[in-house]
Amino acid sequence: MPRHLIFAYLSLIIAVGAAAAMRLRTTPEGNLRMREGAAFKMVLFADLHFGEDSWTEWGPMQDLKSVGVMSAVLDDEQPDFVVYLGDVITANNIMVENASLYWDQALSPTRVRGIPWSTIFGNHDDAPFEWPLDWFSEVGVPQPHCPSANASFAGGSECIFRGTTRLELMRSEIERDSLSFSSDGPRNLWPSVSNYVLKLSSASNAQDPVALMYFVDSGGGSYPEIISNAQVKWFQEKSQEINPHLRVPEIIFWHIPSKAYKKVAPKTRIDAQCVGSILWESVAAQEAEMGMMKVLEKRPSVKAVFVGHNHGLDWCCPHKKMWLCFARHTGYGGYGNWARGARVVEINQEPFCLKSWIRMEDGSTHSEVILSS
Amino acid sequence: MPRHLIFAYLSLIIAVGAAAAMRLRTTPEGNLRMREGAAFKMVLFADLHFGEDSWTEWGPMQDLKSVGVMSAVLDDEQPDFVVYLGDVITANNIMVENASLYWDQALSPTRVRGIPWSTIFGNHDDAPFEWPLDWFSEVGVPQPHCPSANASFAGGSECIFRGTTRLELMRSEIERDSLSFSSDGPRNLWPSVSNYVLKLSSASNAQDPVALMYFVDSGGGSYPEIISNAQVKWFQEKSQEINPHLRVPEIIFWHIPSKAYKKVAPKTRIDAQCVGSILWESVAAQEAEMGMMKVLEKRPSVKAVFVGHNHGLDWCCPHKKMWLCFARHTGYGGYGNWARGARVVEINQEPFCLKSWIRMEDGSTHSEVILSS
Repeated sequence: MPRHLIFAYLSLIIAVGAAAAMRLRTTPEGNLRMREGAAFKMVLFADLHFGEDSWTEWGPMQDLKSVGVMSAVLDDEQPDFVVYLGDVITANNIMVENASLYWDQALSPTRVRGIPWSTIFGNHDDAPFEWPLDWFSEVGVPQPHCPSANASFAGGSECIFRGTTRLELMRSEIERDSLSFSSDGPRNLWPSVSNYVLKLSSASNAQDPVALMYFVDSGGGSYPEIISNAQVKWFQEKSQEINPHLRVPEIIFWHIPSKAYKKVAPKTRIDAQCVGSILWESVAAQEAEMGMMKVLEKRPSVKAVFVGHNHGLDWCCPHKKMWLCFARHTGYGGYGNWARGARVVEINQEPFCLKSWIRMEDGSTHSEVILSS
Repeated sequence: MPRHLIFAYLSLIIAVGAAAAMRLRTTPEGNLRMREGAAFKMVLFADLHFGEDSWTEWGPMQDLKSVGVMSAVLDDEQPDFVVYLGDVITANNIMVENASLYWDQALSPTRVRGIPWSTIFGNHDDAPFEWPLDWFSEVGVPQPHCPSANASFAGGSECIFRGTTRLELMRSEIERDSLSFSSDGPRNLWPSVSNYVLKLSSASNAQDPVALMYFVDSGGGSYPEIISNAQVKWFQEKSQEINPHLRVPEIIFWHIPSKAYKKVAPKTRIDAQCVGSILWESVAAQEAEMGMMKVLEKRPSVKAVFVGHNHGLDWCCPHKKMWLCFARHTGYGGYGNWARGARVVEINQEPFCLKSWIRMEDGSTHSEVILSS
């Protein structure tokens, strides 16, 4: 498909999505609600990497295929909620001033179906543009696009490709999308941004919490790949405030695996205690530990941590009294050619059960595991 | 000296310098002029690295010491012109929105003496801020300074440390300083910026060129460390236009050594054909060659190329019919603790002679060499 048609098609998806969002307008209050008599089902979209090589035909074609993966999974699973697990875009490949354009495209399949979602940041979401070496040969620099109203032309012909910051991306999403449950987090945690909690309540009583979902920014891009000491303190204070007696099960989402993932990682094959289907690379962990895992390990209420980042891993392994899980590479952007899919997480209230499996682009499922036992 | 006093002192230097520049106002026209009966003397300030670790006491103290080096050299040599040979600032260490503040400090010893100058960019001049890992521990993030009028507080408390672009730095310098002979270069060479030519004319006749000085941006920071094919074409067209018969001697300045420097580099000691005093590291060359050296090698009018970048090298070595020279590390910022100094370049008109030596902070000189033979 010619590049301009791909772009037009992606723009159409956004437009239809925006219209659908208007039609299905809800008023999110930071809390989610079970549906009567049904489990609460979430789909995790990991490492979509929209906007990659946007000046080629290949790049926009990958994004179109990623829209296809998300659409297939959403139609098969009909989830109540979607989590965008970071690396939504490949900012270091985006040569426009405002990367929110690509962020929007990645959200569109969820938006168009009226499904609420939340997002966290990965290491590729706010990186500055990396100039390809080839552009300094006879090939030359392609004519840049600076389509946003805020495009900075310094004096006329030069865009400033300094990347769109986490805050700009998040605020653009929140302002635009009524279905977004994302939050830009407490200011004192900056430069880390996507730190917030969502409470899932029972269908019968909004005051009756079924599970707590913590979203944490694991850094990368414009700053180190790390969960800071300040974030650890925030988690401790927040969890003490909303779950002082550890009665409510807790689920954690961030993008880059912590070093504990390296410890539990199966070496040559998925062993008996782990569940998963691919084991193609080593765990690429955060740069340092500032205490987050120690805090989580001491809370029996914490059932599982979900991360993306490693496209060639999709396992869940037990660690202390919780599970450490990878999602499944969803996007056609990013490295690796393993078949695309998405991890599904299902919460049942009575009796409480946290179940997960992987739904592939081709409709098949595998790697079902109970994470609450 | 306490940090606030260092900062106040540096600010005072800038203020006095601005006043002096007003007093000695000239009208630069892109051309330089010999003084009657005198050689034309230039001093090269390389790798000053202002703004390093600006949140500590150590950082501003280094800048103050660099002001001391420049002042000593300028007072000893009394040059007609100064070339700032890149890495004027360490932008990846600067946590303010507008790095021009530090750029200004680096120019101040020259400005305060009423000496004209020009600048080129190094790989550290427009890099985005690199967050120290330690700030994510219990130490925390220091209260950031966003002192410029353009400081971007995204919503209140967060500065955006995306670096000040080459264009912003250069335009700020040119607008502010009447003694600046810098130019932001032809637009079609962007993202490379500091590409321009200065003509040195004889004292008796402004139409009589004595030497041509080409300033070239060798990249790095926000884009690869490279001289592009587009810059090579620009050099070819420009030199053909202003020096078609190769009659005027040509001198070239850029920041990062080209790969040819690796070929001629003395291995274990400064050998007979080279002249210099330190040989403490390997040549850190540009990432790729797009043809610049081949073009220069074919022009007998090209006498010498001057670069910085390697703080532990200060030699000149012959290459084909020209000389390849390192400057001398001038700044207390940047790696290495070799004694600081500056390369001096002197041009005599009749007979034409290009001579160079190194002037140290302590007043001594060494490594004199004739580059026009």
